[in-house]
Amino acid sequence: MKYHYSSMMDFIQPLPIAQLLNREEDPGQISFANGFPDPATFPVEELRAAFDRAFSRYGANALQYAPPEGLPSLREKICGQLKESGIRCELENVLLTQGGSQALDLIASMFLDRGDTILCENPTYTGAMGPFDMRDVNYIGIDVDQEGMDIDQAERALAEHPEVKFIYVIPDFQNPTGATLSLSRRRRLLELAEIYDMLIVEDSPYRELCFGEENLPSLKSMDRNGRVILLGTYSKILCPGLRLGWVVASKEIVSRMTALRIASDMQCSSINMYALDEYFEEADFAAHIRGLRRLYSEKKQCITDAMRRCFLENVRYTDPQGGIFLWLTLPPQVDAARLLRELVLPREHVAYLPGEGFYCRTPQKNTCRLNFSGCTVDQLETGIERLGRVFRQVL
Amino acid sequence: MKYHYSSMMDFIQPLPIAQLLNREEDPGQISFANGFPDPATFPVEELRAAFDRAFSRYGANALQYAPPEGLPSLREKICGQLKESGIRCELENVLLTQGGSQALDLIASMFLDRGDTILCENPTYTGAMGPFDMRDVNYIGIDVDQEGMDIDQAERALAEHPEVKFIYVIPDFQNPTGATLSLSRRRRLLELAEIYDMLIVEDSPYRELCFGEENLPSLKSMDRNGRVILLGTYSKILCPGLRLGWVVASKEIVSRMTALRIASDMQCSSINMYALDEYFEEADFAAHIRGLRRLYSEKKQCITDAMRRCFLENVRYTDPQGGIFLWLTLPPQVDAARLLRELVLPREHVAYLPGEGFYCRTPQKNTCRLNFSGCTVDQLETGIERLGRVFRQVL
Repeated sequence: MKYHYSSMMDFIQPLPIAQLLNREEDPGQISFANGFPDPATFPVEELRAAFDRAFSRYGANALQYAPPEGLPSLREKICGQLKESGIRCELENVLLTQGGSQALDLIASMFLDRGDTILCENPTYTGAMGPFDMRDVNYIGIDVDQEGMDIDQAERALAEHPEVKFIYVIPDFQNPTGATLSLSRRRRLLELAEIYDMLIVEDSPYRELCFGEENLPSLKSMDRNGRVILLGTYSKILCPGLRLGWVVASKEIVSRMTALRIASDMQCSSINMYALDEYFEEADFAAHIRGLRRLYSEKKQCITDAMRRCFLENVRYTDPQGGIFLWLTLPPQVDAARLLRELVLPREHVAYLPGEGFYCRTPQKNTCRLNFSGCTVDQLETGIERLGRVFRQVL
Repeated sequence: MKYHYSSMMDFIQPLPIAQLLNREEDPGQISFANGFPDPATFPVEELRAAFDRAFSRYGANALQYAPPEGLPSLREKICGQLKESGIRCELENVLLTQGGSQALDLIASMFLDRGDTILCENPTYTGAMGPFDMRDVNYIGIDVDQEGMDIDQAERALAEHPEVKFIYVIPDFQNPTGATLSLSRRRRLLELAEIYDMLIVEDSPYRELCFGEENLPSLKSMDRNGRVILLGTYSKILCPGLRLGWVVASKEIVSRMTALRIASDMQCSSINMYALDEYFEEADFAAHIRGLRRLYSEKKQCITDAMRRCFLENVRYTDPQGGIFLWLTLPPQVDAARLLRELVLPREHVAYLPGEGFYCRTPQKNTCRLNFSGCTVDQLETGIERLGRVFRQVL
């Protein structure tokens, strides 16, 4: 039979890029394309023990339905972790989500009617554009430089567009550019949100992965009026396979979002919440994070060193101070997607994500995103050497 | 600040019933209200061992991102299980979902625009009405008798309403009434779907929990044209805490639904999928199901025996041939919600779900749903004795 889909389905892509980059068909491929954390960092034995303790301690309860907001003891621990970042929140401010991605979908459902307008960085996270696109959103994309979102441009745009429903921003080691929103811009962004009475959605999956000593204060920590919805996840700092992330927001927003979540998929996996709670009881999570920071900082150093050796001056790249991504800008005439398809993948068996997919308006086709967390140091060096070879040949 | 929600949020209830029935504040309560499986049936030790094997066998891979459709080996096992029910499907027909509830939300997103019309049983599953309500659906509710949906009424409704987007039906041991759609009605429903070119959403979480020897054939097993989307879950036949359910549908629908799911929450928990796969490798799942059938059949017998002893003839109840729910009809003048609030809960510390919430049109306020899987045999008897006492006093 012929199916009659909702109009929402017009805006959902069947992910041709993911198909193109299928590693199973190209086992020798070195991929900078995905956003995978390094699996060697997953505390497999500690998590195995945590699951085992959860089974011993809670038995069948760990397999029964659990509160849709998430286990209270786990939410309390999240409050404790956030307190160390200067964020004051209580149990009722925290909702557990199915990774960070579900939080974006819930926020889109909660605040966006079809054709609504949001303001965001340009380029921005494609995974957020999925749920936003589904609501046929009108994007106001703001340029990103080394200090993050161009705040003057944002101010002009907000003055012109009072209809903006919220500001979506990734302030820490942004996906895809790796840029960090500077302190003065953070302050101004929050001021603008006050002046124009806007919500801010602060998406911060990489915040804990800073290479320096200290992070800049999160927007949420400076929020006095329940304007900021902060999204976090354990996908990049522990492992993605538990599908556990969280939202911190005003009690009203969390309560409404919980009702929405019940209508959507009820709750996160009970056993995973109990096991994560047990993991936090026993593990030295702070030491785990320090190890991640060291490792990813070394990997970033390794990939940028290799770039310095292998790329000519016509290839520019960002130097992120944390996170897992950096951003390449090739000479203006280059189409990075075509280059990937025609040369980089088939000849050099290297994959990156063409930058065009990250733009919510007028893509710069000469850009691409490289992930450095998922590769080994050897792969980083070899991959960049191969990329450099192609670039030198064609650029 | 004052938040400006999407229009969708107008249709989301903050669940006052759930608040009212909060057991934490009434520890002596006997609750027939929820839809919990009996936790004593959860194979805790086998699942603990399955998680352990998953960690040993797959290590960090079990904690990394996994395919959004679900693990191929697990989807193959689901195909195998369905084959025994006469359903032929391949890997590409199966999508793992976050319990059965997510499947309903995905289907609502995929097929419903605001104000669209669906045809369903009246009463029907409230959990499905959550995602349907959010799309401001126009319900055509069809009466339910002992043989399930009244098919003559459905035929007249379909003839009058060619705009129906799909038929939503729970053919096996329906939630909330416990009714089973008879074989002749199954055949006619499928014929009607052919004649009026409709999709059928066959929601069947309790199918394996039949008390007799054999189930009636599922609608999906009789489907020749990709008209039926079948929803299943391990929540009621293994445990809810893994949050693992599935959709079986045509390859086109599964492929579009997977793209939608990626934009929604990416995937189910990797470790849970690996562990369930390991569980199926080692466990005698068929024997587990047989045990569940025996137990729930005994519990059903116990609760209906108690009803026969404790209720007068003015209280009618269904006698389900499987599943976990039965349905009470009190004398016409009784408001079951008010009775619960004013007498049953405060005086007898018994909870049921008032039937009014299950109706998509004109509620019958003199009805209520009783779950018999979540209580022990003692609780079933004591709970019904207490209920009988109130009923004899006030009816």
